[in-house]
Amino acid sequence: MGKISVGILGATGMVGQTLVRLLEKHKWFEVTELAASDRSSGKSYGEIMKGRWSISPEMPKYAEEMVIKECNPDLRCDVVLSALDSSVALEIENKFAKAGYAVSSNAKNHRMENDVPLLIPEINPDHLALIDMQRKKRGWKGFIVTDPNCSTIHMCIALKPLFDSFGLERISVTTMQAASGAGYPGVPSLDIIDNVIPFISDEEDKLENEPLKIFGSISGSGVINAGFRVSASCNRVPVRYGHTESISVKLSRKTDREEVIATLKKFSPLSGMGLPSAPRRSVVYSEVENRPQARFDALVEGGMASVVGRLRKCNVLDYKFTVLGHNLIRGAAGAALLNAELLKVKGYI
Amino acid sequence: MGKISVGILGATGMVGQTLVRLLEKHKWFEVTELAASDRSSGKSYGEIMKGRWSISPEMPKYAEEMVIKECNPDLRCDVVLSALDSSVALEIENKFAKAGYAVSSNAKNHRMENDVPLLIPEINPDHLALIDMQRKKRGWKGFIVTDPNCSTIHMCIALKPLFDSFGLERISVTTMQAASGAGYPGVPSLDIIDNVIPFISDEEDKLENEPLKIFGSISGSGVINAGFRVSASCNRVPVRYGHTESISVKLSRKTDREEVIATLKKFSPLSGMGLPSAPRRSVVYSEVENRPQARFDALVEGGMASVVGRLRKCNVLDYKFTVLGHNLIRGAAGAALLNAELLKVKGYI
Amino acid sequence: MGKISVGILGATGMVGQTLVRLLEKHKWFEVTELAASDRSSGKSYGEIMKGRWSISPEMPKYAEEMVIKECNPDLRCDVVLSALDSSVALEIENKFAKAGYAVSSNAKNHRMENDVPLLIPEINPDHLALIDMQRKKRGWKGFIVTDPNCSTIHMCIALKPLFDSFGLERISVTTMQAASGAGYPGVPSLDIIDNVIPFISDEEDKLENEPLKIFGSISGSGVINAGFRVSASCNRVPVRYGHTESISVKLSRKTDREEVIATLKKFSPLSGMGLPSAPRRSVVYSEVENRPQARFDALVEGGMASVVGRLRKCNVLDYKFTVLGHNLIRGAAGAALLNAELLKVKGYI
Amino acid sequence: MGKISVGILGATGMVGQTLVRLLEKHKWFEVTELAASDRSSGKSYGEIMKGRWSISPEMPKYAEEMVIKECNPDLRCDVVLSALDSSVALEIENKFAKAGYAVSSNAKNHRMENDVPLLIPEINPDHLALIDMQRKKRGWKGFIVTDPNCSTIHMCIALKPLFDSFGLERISVTTMQAASGAGYPGVPSLDIIDNVIPFISDEEDKLENEPLKIFGSISGSGVINAGFRVSASCNRVPVRYGHTESISVKLSRKTDREEVIATLKKFSPLSGMGLPSAPRRSVVYSEVENRPQARFDALVEGGMASVVGRLRKCNVLDYKFTVLGHNLIRGAAGAALLNAELLKVKGYI
Repeated sequence: MGKISVGILGATGMVGQTLVRLLEKHKWFEVTELAASDRSSGKSYGEIMKGRWSISPEMPKYAEEMVIKECNPDLRCDVVLSALDSSVALEIENKFAKAGYAVSSNAKNHRMENDVPLLIPEINPDHLALIDMQRKKRGWKGFIVTDPNCSTIHMCIALKPLFDSFGLERISVTTMQAASGAGYPGVPSLDIIDNVIPFISDEEDKLENEPLKIFGSISGSGVINAGFRVSASCNRVPVRYGHTESISVKLSRKTDREEVIATLKKFSPLSGMGLPSAPRRSVVYSEVENRPQARFDALVEGGMASVVGRLRKCNVLDYKFTVLGHNLIRGAAGAALLNAELLKVKGYI
Repeated sequence: MGKISVGILGATGMVGQTLVRLLEKHKWFEVTELAASDRSSGKSYGEIMKGRWSISPEMPKYAEEMVIKECNPDLRCDVVLSALDSSVALEIENKFAKAGYAVSSNAKNHRMENDVPLLIPEINPDHLALIDMQRKKRGWKGFIVTDPNCSTIHMCIALKPLFDSFGLERISVTTMQAASGAGYPGVPSLDIIDNVIPFISDEEDKLENEPLKIFGSISGSGVINAGFRVSASCNRVPVRYGHTESISVKLSRKTDREEVIATLKKFSPLSGMGLPSAPRRSVVYSEVENRPQARFDALVEGGMASVVGRLRKCNVLDYKFTVLGHNLIRGAAGAALLNAELLKVKGYI
Repeated sequence: MGKISVGILGATGMVGQTLVRLLEKHKWFEVTELAASDRSSGKSYGEIMKGRWSISPEMPKYAEEMVIKECNPDLRCDVVLSALDSSVALEIENKFAKAGYAVSSNAKNHRMENDVPLLIPEINPDHLALIDMQRKKRGWKGFIVTDPNCSTIHMCIALKPLFDSFGLERISVTTMQAASGAGYPGVPSLDIIDNVIPFISDEEDKLENEPLKIFGSISGSGVINAGFRVSASCNRVPVRYGHTESISVKLSRKTDREEVIATLKKFSPLSGMGLPSAPRRSVVYSEVENRPQARFDALVEGGMASVVGRLRKCNVLDYKFTVLGHNLIRGAAGAALLNAELLKVKGYI
Repeated sequence: MGKISVGILGATGMVGQTLVRLLEKHKWFEVTELAASDRSSGKSYGEIMKGRWSISPEMPKYAEEMVIKECNPDLRCDVVLSALDSSVALEIENKFAKAGYAVSSNAKNHRMENDVPLLIPEINPDHLALIDMQRKKRGWKGFIVTDPNCSTIHMCIALKPLFDSFGLERISVTTMQAASGAGYPGVPSLDIIDNVIPFISDEEDKLENEPLKIFGSISGSGVINAGFRVSASCNRVPVRYGHTESISVKLSRKTDREEVIATLKKFSPLSGMGLPSAPRRSVVYSEVENRPQARFDALVEGGMASVVGRLRKCNVLDYKFTVLGHNLIRGAAGAALLNAELLKVKGYI
């Protein structure tokens, strides 16, 4: 049987490049279209990306000769993975969904809309039920699903087993985010060499609000937000890939350190579902006292896992720990791809 | 009138070098002795430090010809500033205090002893009363005062005006600490280039316990710890100088953002005391949305201030903000020096 | 007597900011105008630069309230220091010179024109004679002088004493240039963290050709290039300030290592001229085996010197050594300022 | 048929770890012994390396349970790969060779001895003839072969096709070397963050002398050095892996740029020999104007190739170009391994 045809919107950016790489030799999907802004369209991907390809030593062969299209809903594909910049994503994604495409987006624009799933397969696959509401409400043939912010997603994956086993009341998180989270050219080197920047525009808002929707429950009219509260402090650090997060949590019921660690270790909700890009373990717990670290752990499970370590008692809330995850893979491109794979097994594409 | 003679113990390390620089042309103190480990003693400071001096482009002239002594209590000076490594500080500092020297130490060894002041002039000058208990109890002619850990001190300076005006209940802090906090050679470059290390040995314990003593009250038998609680998560980042800290606090009484900022801005408890190394403003509040930053703000007020910014509501506790301070100056050498200056105006030396 | 009024063109960029700082409390010059691109004009410098000022902890007070003007030749000043981007410098500088202003430029556009001095006060003050040719040929009331590329200038200062004492035949130079050499935002952090980029557009051409003019002799019709040859390889390294250069030279006459070092050490052609920004020593020779280094030596002599070290025999040419210099100070803003000071003592302004 | 048994000396250092990884699932060799200094011996590799393994996300399974032995010549293996520190390598390697082991060493100690091959399979496989002289002269049953310094090897691989086709007269090289070249803990982070160090102890001597032996010819009494001359300037840069080298060469016969590039591109002397660790292409030439770069190209061909780019005319010698190579793989561990593979196909083991 043939593969499902996929188009990548915003294929020239950091997240788009990562999608191009992740989709090389994909079991279910075949990239039939690469699209980007007007300036790039009409040229081959190899030509446009010469000297700009930065995700791996060499660009996948399949992409080199592909001609970059404009982001119009006349692409020859059934699914589009959107790595568009938020300045243009709203309108373009709407056009594609209206025209009948299944859109799995990494852009922030649609995330908080009440009829759009903000989807993490390990946490809220039931939110796919919003797709029917969305189509009905908007009169679309196609639909849009979104993935969360790169720091949000790794925090939520680590929190999910705690949420299920102990309940969550309060979460305090301080992030130390890699430069690649800002795309390319992104953070000027003069700003970040030998420095920490204690501010990332809009980022704390995303970390505080997206989890409420992700852990929310489905009702007839959309998502009812989860009842916990999140406080976030976001920092940029001179690291290329891998967001590190120091997290403290207040749980709903008492437990001990061993039980929390055991709960984290046994969390693997995707096993048995056969999603090609799913990590074997969604949470990887490290026992080494100074781990996880970006330079070692960002690529654990191919960059699709959230690596947790240093779980210990917190004097203010209950427990604290460190989470590390690859911001471009599980934090962005891999998340949109995994969502598309979930759409496939659930029959939406 | 003559200057007070000062000896520097551990003069060859990072903190020792910083003391050598800070004491150049000091108004009250004159460095008459430089002491270090056996290997260095007998040679001139200029000879030993050739190629190792790393605090400023050129070593102060006064130090070049001074012969390095062993750390024995036969130094020709009245006060010693100790930048000794903790592996040797306990015994050596005891010998000096016993022999009649006033010891202002940056080492961790004596910090938590109940008859030793853990001193920040802006916060607990009344703890100097411990000196009499210490001398009586130990039968010493001299005495020891200590300064706190480099991350503790900047956090405490920022917290002091909040403690005074609103009361403190809970503090949650995540640090992003500079490599120089580990001394020299300290952190190997392979460990920290393009990386964050989410662990610093013993550091969280210091941040969680030292503030309780610093903000404690004096009783007849020592210090009664303050009643708030601190939870700390310590990270090492690829920065040379300047610790950045994301802090959230729960206050005892309600207030609003403007009042908190105003309280921070007007905090200058040392003005009028005439301490030569005191910052004009102990807390400098920055209104720029992405400040404080190590590369800009570590040297504000000559590195003696704690720079605060981004004060905003916290969803979990009450308020959160960022503190940035120079770890070698106000965080270590400058703290020991300022304590010695306080000892002088209070009549202890 | 009053100070000479100075305008800064391109005052908001990295070089412009450095000029703003260097001109604070200048003995001879007073900044009366700050000009920049259309987008900034009409607003105060303090407002435009809030969060962008990056040269020192705090912007000089004098500049804060100044209103930024457009770069039109109606500025109230006698001299303009140009830190304009090369994309606009040609036309704007021409307009100012035509209108009667003395223009001391850091832009590359006019450097190689045969009637424009490419000026380093230590090397070719006699090239000021070109000003008369320039005015005559172009019918201008004012005139333009330029300073060299940031890597060229430090190399040339180090070469000048060798040129004078031994003659120069061949120069081979490999640069390791700081990110700030590319201006702001300049080099994206993703390109340079943990990396070396072995290419800087047009840079090798400047290093190979500008020295021939700088060391050239004046004839009736312009400059006759010097006869030596330069080969340059330019690299970008993850350093903020300070270009490091490994240089080998073939000399015209035989000499020994001690003589070469002695020649470098005694090079101070500006002493006695009273130029306010001149370094006491134009070349500072370091005897420490692993110096000069950007982190220590970039600010030697206030960033106005070229620091040389490691002079030793070369197996291919005659001698080799390392030069380190601040790219924004002596390499750019300080060079344009020093040239203006030379113009003043030579009676051109 | 069984695999050849291999022991790794110095298995806990950076080069030793790289050998442990490269030998996982090796086609010909099986690691039967891991040896290191006295302090480690007797414990399992997994225990000793917990928190120290730094070459890949996870240590190869085969090594975890192996007990570390002392470096005495009673190891159960036929070949030893030595990653010993030079402070102990001389004596230990001698003992092993005397006792009958084939020793392929990465240490510098024996490199320049006239009866020891300084071996690069692409360049001087005929130097294996020295093994017989060595055994005879020293009365050893076993023998020692060595690989060159990490910067030397990549330079020599790039030079070999030029040497063969055009002849070499002069080479001028400036290196920008990664921190991992100094081992672990190696370069302190305070020395190298935001800095370049223009000195590496003994390194220039190796780059200037080792190539003369490598390209030398075999006579009855040892190696007759090649007749060209090398001048080296060595710098340390804040990069973790990958040495970058700017190289200029004077050739014996005239040629043009296209011919030089073509000669580099077709250089693949190991193809057809079947060495398991040999790169498909020993030199990989990049046409992108700003390549090779450490972050992209260090792992080309699994880190076993030398990546060349920017070949262009030189104003002082004839041509210049940039070479980039992985210092721990082809520059050290992979070189010793490839040499052992050559020994096997040539019948020495």
